[in-house]
Formats: sequence, structure tokens, C-alpha cells
Amino acid sequence: MQQVKALVFDVFGTVVDWRSGVARELAGYLSAIGRTDLDPFLLADAWRRRYQPAMEECRSGRRPFTRLDVLHRENLEAMLGDHGVTGCKASDLDALNLAWHKLDPWPDVLLGLHRLKRKYFLAPLSNGNIALLANMAKRARIPWDAILGAEPVQAYKPQPEAYLRTAELLAMQPHEVCLVAAHNGDLRAARAAGLATAFIPRPVEHGAGQTIDLTAEDPWDCVAADFVDLAARLGAG
Amino acid sequence: MQQVKALVFDVFGTVVDWRSGVARELAGYLSAIGRTDLDPFLLADAWRRRYQPAMEECRSGRRPFTRLDVLHRENLEAMLGDHGVTGCKASDLDALNLAWHKLDPWPDVLLGLHRLKRKYFLAPLSNGNIALLANMAKRARIPWDAILGAEPVQAYKPQPEAYLRTAELLAMQPHEVCLVAAHNGDLRAARAAGLATAFIPRPVEHGAGQTIDLTAEDPWDCVAADFVDLAARLGAG
Repeated sequence: MQQVKALVFDVFGTVVDWRSGVARELAGYLSAIGRTDLDPFLLADAWRRRYQPAMEECRSGRRPFTRLDVLHRENLEAMLGDHGVTGCKASDLDALNLAWHKLDPWPDVLLGLHRLKRKYFLAPLSNGNIALLANMAKRARIPWDAILGAEPVQAYKPQPEAYLRTAELLAMQPHEVCLVAAHNGDLRAARAAGLATAFIPRPVEHGAGQTIDLTAEDPWDCVAADFVDLAARLGAG
Repeated sequence: MQQVKALVFDVFGTVVDWRSGVARELAGYLSAIGRTDLDPFLLADAWRRRYQPAMEECRSGRRPFTRLDVLHRENLEAMLGDHGVTGCKASDLDALNLAWHKLDPWPDVLLGLHRLKRKYFLAPLSNGNIALLANMAKRARIPWDAILGAEPVQAYKPQPEAYLRTAELLAMQPHEVCLVAAHNGDLRAARAAGLATAFIPRPVEHGAGQTIDLTAEDPWDCVAADFVDLAARLGAG
């Protein structure tokens, strides 16, 4: 970690609690259309389950790179259809799609990032698009130094280009960039591309019964309890 | 201006005083190599004169889009050669090229932007690349909401794509985005692309004898004395 100059962060799950935030926005909509029989957390999970398959269409080359807001919008309509919610107004779904722009950080994030920012260049390296990540940061006051991620490099994680082109945009070597993530798979791909790696557990990202990514599965360069602990371990406390 | 949601800013000249900053860095280098016979302001102007022709190679399609740090580095070596400064160490020139990352904002910028940020989404729309603009913002504490510009859209101003694709990245219509610039030509191209326009004079950008861009040459949507006045005129004061 001695050579690291920039920390780049997975966002959904690592920085923000997507499940609670998306369920909150869904609950508001379901209430407005009189469908309080549906569980908003179950729908949030169903919306999220369509995330990887939609990106895989782009990764495989079957579809040109398409920003996440567009994929989310398509997935929302399909997911609601699966649950018998049809005939929605397009403008209502456009608004509901912005749930992903309005997610709250986990409680340790802002303090940790403010400390880390004194020592490191900080940016998201998320599959979220620029407008999504920037709107989220403005609302939640997340102190990024730049908004990076899949859209400026036109590649979705875990494609190696997502990591390598991000280092290139920063004018840094891959080993000068560290990915911080709550997901062992993301870290494996980052390490394969030559980045440094830091793991933070987010044991309730998927709710109380979460079974995956509870611990560091490989010897990552740093393992911390949360962002404040990460700052302390990296000498930025 | 009623429909404007984002303000995007020209940077070199409008936000930062490039000439003084570049001359300061050149002066340090010239002193270190014993060439204090050369005028650093004259060299700064000469370096900057190669800026438009270098980008024009990319705009014309004769050269693929190439980030500004690379063009600046080539232009630096050529400019120094023109003035009889040869045999420089490559690592010294690499360091000197970062002069463009270390420019200071004009005195009204930070206060004005902090006020404007409460009401608008703020981003640079500069021909500078992401690392250059982000390093500059981190050093000078410029409170951008995202780092936009030529590199994420792969087009140099005044190409229409530079303005239109930036609005698209923001998920906004062109008329919801306002370019703030000290250069009438930049504003003309932005208006032709459908953006709103705001002019701020920077009467000593090119030094005491400046003859261009002293006043608004077209009826721009807003004309302000500086960034603090702009905030007041836009109801963000």
C-alpha cells in the first residue's frame, strides 16, 4: 500500500446501502399506486438481480456499452411486470429509476472519506454512470475528487479494462491505485489487473440473512472494519 | 436561465489564471537550469499558442483524440526548442508539464462557486483532461460536483459534440445546461449547440495589454462581473 496514490471505491454496497434506499423509494411508489401488498425489499432484491445479466449483455459485446441508468430503467419495468405491476406511467417509472441516485452512505463513510482525502486521491470506480454517481455524491455530500467508473472508460467491472483504463485516466500505474470494495469478486478482478486491494465487510448489504462476502476470502493488501478503520490503517486517521 | 440546472465552466482563463501559474512554474525551471535570461511569461504565451493547433489535429480527424496532458507535453518540448532550450531531462519536462495541474483560481472563484453549488450542479467543461482538472480542483479546493470536459466526451471544444455529449452525460437537455466562460467564441459554439450562456470578463488573462474578450460581444443569457456577481444574478447569492 506504500505506493498507492489513489483510492477508488466500489459504490453499491461498499459506499451506500442500496437495498434500504431502493426499498424506501419503491415503498413510496407502491403506496401511491395502492399496492402495499407487495414487499418493497423483495422488489429491491428482484430489481438488483437483473443488474449483472443486463451488464453481461454489454460485456459480451452482444450490446454496445449502455449506461446503467438505461439498464436500470429497463430492469425496473421488467421486474414490476414479473410482480404483476403493469400499466405504470412512464414518467413515474423515470422518477422511480432515480432511486439509485438517492442512496445513503453507510454511517462510517463520510468521516472516513474526509480523513482519507487528506492523503489520497478519491474517486468511485462503480458500474454506475456519471450522472448517477455525481447526483448521489451531491445529495449525500460524498467528497470525491473526481467521478470515475464504467461510463468514462466504457467498460463494466469486472472487465479488466474497467480497472486499467481508470488507472490510465488518473495518469497512474495500476499498482498506484487501490480498489476498496465489500465484494471479494471485484477485488479479485482488480488484483488480476494489477491494482492494490482493500476489503471492508458490509454484512447486511443483502439484509439480515446475508451469506456472501462476510469476510476477506483472499489475502487482500488491507482489510478494515469500515472506512474510519481504513483511514487509521492507512495512516490517514 | 430559469430552466438551467447545471453550470459548466470553461477553466483556463475563466476559472484559473493559467498565464501567471504557468509562468511561475517555468520560472522555477529556468532558474534551475541557469536560463534566467528567458522571460517566463513570454514562454508561457508561446506554450499556450501551440494549444489550439495541437487540438485542431484531433478535431480535424488527422489524429485520434489525444488527452491534453500529452499535447501539452509535446508542445512544451517544441516551445523550449524554439527558444534554444534543448537537452532537457525527460523527467524534468514531465514534472514541468504538471504546471497546468497547479493553477490558481481567480480571487472570486471559490466564494462564487460555493454559493452557486447550493442551487446548481457544477462541473468544468474544459479541454483539460480528467486528471489535470481533478488534480487542479483538489489542490485549489474547487468544489465541482463532477469532472467533465473533453476527455469523457472525446471531443475538443468548440466541436458541437463537446457541448452536446456533456449535456447527455448529465442526463439533461442542452438548454438545461449553461456554459460560463470568459471567451465569446466558446459561448458562440455553446449557444449553437443549444446551451444557455454566461459571460464573465477576465481582462488580464493574457496580461496587461489584453485586447480580446474584454466585453460580451453577443447578447448572452447572463453577463456578470465575476463569479460572486454571477451567483447574485442567478439568485444563489
